[in-house]
Amino acid sequence: MSELVTTVRIYLEDTDAQGIVYHANYLKYCERARTEFLETLGYSLAKSQMAGVYFVVFDMKLKFRRPARLLETLELRTNCTRGSEYRLTFSHEIFRADEPSPLFVAEAVVVTIDEAGKLCPLPAGLLESEA
Amino acid sequence: MSELVTTVRIYLEDTDAQGIVYHANYLKYCERARTEFLETLGYSLAKSQMAGVYFVVFDMKLKFRRPARLLETLELRTNCTRGSEYRLTFSHEIFRADEPSPLFVAEAVVVTIDEAGKLCPLPAGLLESEA
Amino acid sequence: MSELVTTVRIYLEDTDAQGIVYHANYLKYCERARTEFLETLGYSLAKSQMAGVYFVVFDMKLKFRRPARLLETLELRTNCTRGSEYRLTFSHEIFRADEPSPLFVAEAVVVTIDEAGKLCPLPAGLLESEA
Amino acid sequence: MSELVTTVRIYLEDTDAQGIVYHANYLKYCERARTEFLETLGYSLAKSQMAGVYFVVFDMKLKFRRPARLLETLELRTNCTRGSEYRLTFSHEIFRADEPSPLFVAEAVVVTIDEAGKLCPLPAGLLESEA
Repeated sequence: MSELVTTVRIYLEDTDAQGIVYHANYLKYCERARTEFLETLGYSLAKSQMAGVYFVVFDMKLKFRRPARLLETLELRTNCTRGSEYRLTFSHEIFRADEPSPLFVAEAVVVTIDEAGKLCPLPAGLLESEA
Repeated sequence: MSELVTTVRIYLEDTDAQGIVYHANYLKYCERARTEFLETLGYSLAKSQMAGVYFVVFDMKLKFRRPARLLETLELRTNCTRGSEYRLTFSHEIFRADEPSPLFVAEAVVVTIDEAGKLCPLPAGLLESEA
Repeated sequence: MSELVTTVRIYLEDTDAQGIVYHANYLKYCERARTEFLETLGYSLAKSQMAGVYFVVFDMKLKFRRPARLLETLELRTNCTRGSEYRLTFSHEIFRADEPSPLFVAEAVVVTIDEAGKLCPLPAGLLESEA
Repeated sequence: MSELVTTVRIYLEDTDAQGIVYHANYLKYCERARTEFLETLGYSLAKSQMAGVYFVVFDMKLKFRRPARLLETLELRTNCTRGSEYRLTFSHEIFRADEPSPLFVAEAVVVTIDEAGKLCPLPAGLLESEA
């Protein structure tokens, strides 16, 4: 699976009184990107949910390198590998257009749970050749 | 039913790059207060939801009088009247401790809908004597 | 000034445990649209802020007609008139693609304040012919 | 420095359409706890900011063990050590009242930057004996 590139525009809602993007909001941008990534593979969060399967983050590592500010447009580069029957590992990099190194980097381990919150195997076929 | 008084503490998450509380967040504070108000009347949002009844805002009027800032503690005063078989009207005022007039005022008309999104009568007994 | 049409995609961050878009989030979508509207007129929030001028909501009326859900793409139609030397009035309508009537409608009165929070006249030239 | 124990109540705003607390919101709860922790040490975020010093997260590791739900009250246990002239390391554990193991665990490395975004030494005296 190739990298997915998406963009996010920074509005007032994204910033805080320090004049920069509030740190927790980068997790929203990553989650938007994962959602679109799964859609491109044919796995809609909306449909999965109706089938009682929920994609949730199990583990995440975040590196905040430089702050982003109001009205910037950032570029997200998202990759994913299937680590096992139970785990997808997404890697996220967020760039300012004219900078060679990312201002934010994250790795997210995503698993699927059922309605009771119990871990269940990933959908058959989802990035399986890479497992 | 008497007025409910609650407080909210302003953290970084609540503010924006203008250095003030982001306007949409006042709706969160009002909704927290309505939730506690309904709890004091014996109507838990969590239980209602399991019974397939959802309290939702239908109409809201907001007046932003003065901005609030990081690390302030605000006081919320919440009142409610039952206007009809279908409508609760909440009035919200948010004060800074040492000021006589509210910095934010809102009126929210709340209705109940079922899982399909269809309007349904309010729970029997909920503030009924006031209808 | 003609109407501005923008879109918003609904992600998990936008929804709540009732399975619908959390009501306060519609204010974020309207604010994004106002920001883009002002940009098309040459007034960047980011630049205004550096000049010590802040656009803030003073008054807002909201009508929540029907709920929106995960992974929908909504259309926002935004209009603006200058009511006086001090006030812009934005009208917002949010539509689901295939529906003739909006699921959310709002009117927002926007004013400008300085760093001390004091009301100041709108920038000269901003939609002035309509005042 | 002893552990700080705080609580957070889960409202609709905290949840998502999967019926659980939206993952990014745990970062808000941790940040609220760090803010109160610094206050107990005499370092107000509000005052630091006026002095042009901003506490920001540099690095964070998150473990999401079990989901939390609407109207639960969670307990946060926060500890902090000063790792160097430049770094504070906060450890966060979030518990459901009646459970022995945390449902969420995080470690956050916090640094201070100036208005230009440049790293600066931590305030003198802040947990210094532990460095």
